[in-house]
Amino acid sequence: MTFSEYVEDRRRRVDEALDRWIPAESLVPHTIHKAMRYSLFAGGKRIRPLLCLAAAEAVTDSPQGVEQVACTLEMIHTYSLIHDDLPAMDNDDLRRGRPTCHKVFGDALAILAGDALCTLAFEVLGQAPCDAERRVSLIVELARASGSVGGMIAGQVQDIEGEGKHPDFKLLQAIHHAKTGALLKASLRMGGIFCGADEEQLAALSRYGEHVGLAFQIVDDLLDVEQTSGKLGKTAGKDAQQQKMTFPAVYGIERSREMAEEERLSASLALRPFDERAERLRELADLIVSRET
Amino acid sequence: MTFSEYVEDRRRRVDEALDRWIPAESLVPHTIHKAMRYSLFAGGKRIRPLLCLAAAEAVTDSPQGVEQVACTLEMIHTYSLIHDDLPAMDNDDLRRGRPTCHKVFGDALAILAGDALCTLAFEVLGQAPCDAERRVSLIVELARASGSVGGMIAGQVQDIEGEGKHPDFKLLQAIHHAKTGALLKASLRMGGIFCGADEEQLAALSRYGEHVGLAFQIVDDLLDVEQTSGKLGKTAGKDAQQQKMTFPAVYGIERSREMAEEERLSASLALRPFDERAERLRELADLIVSRET
Repeated sequence: MTFSEYVEDRRRRVDEALDRWIPAESLVPHTIHKAMRYSLFAGGKRIRPLLCLAAAEAVTDSPQGVEQVACTLEMIHTYSLIHDDLPAMDNDDLRRGRPTCHKVFGDALAILAGDALCTLAFEVLGQAPCDAERRVSLIVELARASGSVGGMIAGQVQDIEGEGKHPDFKLLQAIHHAKTGALLKASLRMGGIFCGADEEQLAALSRYGEHVGLAFQIVDDLLDVEQTSGKLGKTAGKDAQQQKMTFPAVYGIERSREMAEEERLSASLALRPFDERAERLRELADLIVSRET
Repeated sequence: MTFSEYVEDRRRRVDEALDRWIPAESLVPHTIHKAMRYSLFAGGKRIRPLLCLAAAEAVTDSPQGVEQVACTLEMIHTYSLIHDDLPAMDNDDLRRGRPTCHKVFGDALAILAGDALCTLAFEVLGQAPCDAERRVSLIVELARASGSVGGMIAGQVQDIEGEGKHPDFKLLQAIHHAKTGALLKASLRMGGIFCGADEEQLAALSRYGEHVGLAFQIVDDLLDVEQTSGKLGKTAGKDAQQQKMTFPAVYGIERSREMAEEERLSASLALRPFDERAERLRELADLIVSRET
């Protein structure tokens, strides 16, 4: 299977899991389930679920049922985008080439759709096809990675509070570490935890996750500068406009591009404890650095 | 111990558990932890945690550590109030006699503080002092009760969508069943689950919870009509102003008052499978019906 066939196949599996777990639009109240599905099935790249699946496959051959774990990462990611796009937050009208959730369903329903996706992620993990000990580990891992102490929510707060401040390397790293890094790292660890990875494997997945997370964020910042809104599917140039603290703002474009490449290499090196089954993780690191949207 | 001493003692225990689990204001980012604590420690009545503790005490003598479970119910309840008060939702400036979270910290931080409380509830349950099987049961119970299918979020959506509609008994019941009923019922069930209640006991706690939940909501609707904002600590008369579907609107005040009393009686009767250890639950039902705020 080529890498692009692999990615397509795994995205399909993740989408099937999402479709199975997100309440149908026919369920009352219809509008909220419509809003949840609208944002979830909007052509997301499924980076976090792909990392989760590939981590599981690096630990075990053909892990059964890991899609149910992987899809909860996309629920958390999507809820954070919905809330982030609200007028009270980043106030964005465009996401993945379509009007944002609140533009279509209104602010109240967008807030509630985000809340519901957050809640559902934990309900679905509570029924993951593994023993109760592992379910609990997965839940605590996801909650911490998306929480207010070093997790995604912490990063969002620091991001908002950092607007307009003088660019500063330490703060920039802290923001990205929390805002996107924590959930990306958790994606890998959760794939490992589900498959019963040992301590050495989990530590390797964590290191890989940290490097790949940083690479991801640097590229994200670069794309915001270099691409058009049409290509990105979201409003380009917003970071500069909102005086966000970004890698290009602190290091310039050229050095940022080099740093992304360095992180990709470090990510790859972190995978040494694994055999050739970690190849998909290496290819995913390449994809993350070379992506154009 | 008199009932009011009992309530005071149990509220103190719940507040201690909350204080232990909510990140300190000294933790970065300070503002979000300040916002979370501002709303949590604003003089809430702690009805849900009290029900949870009393349910546990009806099943077992002196249940150890149940406060950790009980306090997660207050986290979920408080997050729902913070989001509900936002300008995009009910747009309320006053809660528990103080400015609402977004009036003090701004809309963005209020959204994130709510998100963080929701997430934290599941993290804390994932570390509850019981075996992993029970932790998972508690998590799934709480997620369903606060979710978009028959849970709290479903009720909020139906409540918003019901504004201005012709008062209708079936819709009114559906809204309240989901909006407040589900979480109140879960409060009791979670106390039972934590203590290893058997099927008969859980069924009795569920029935008690349904009746007490309905009584709670009827009284809530009545207080909105009959009390002043000063006494309630939140804006009174908002239901009528927003054309909300309420019990007084459908049945009138007198019949609503009778209905609350009927539900209190039914709640008490549902406790028959328990011995005298369920006395606190009976007294809590009385408190819920006779409360003036």
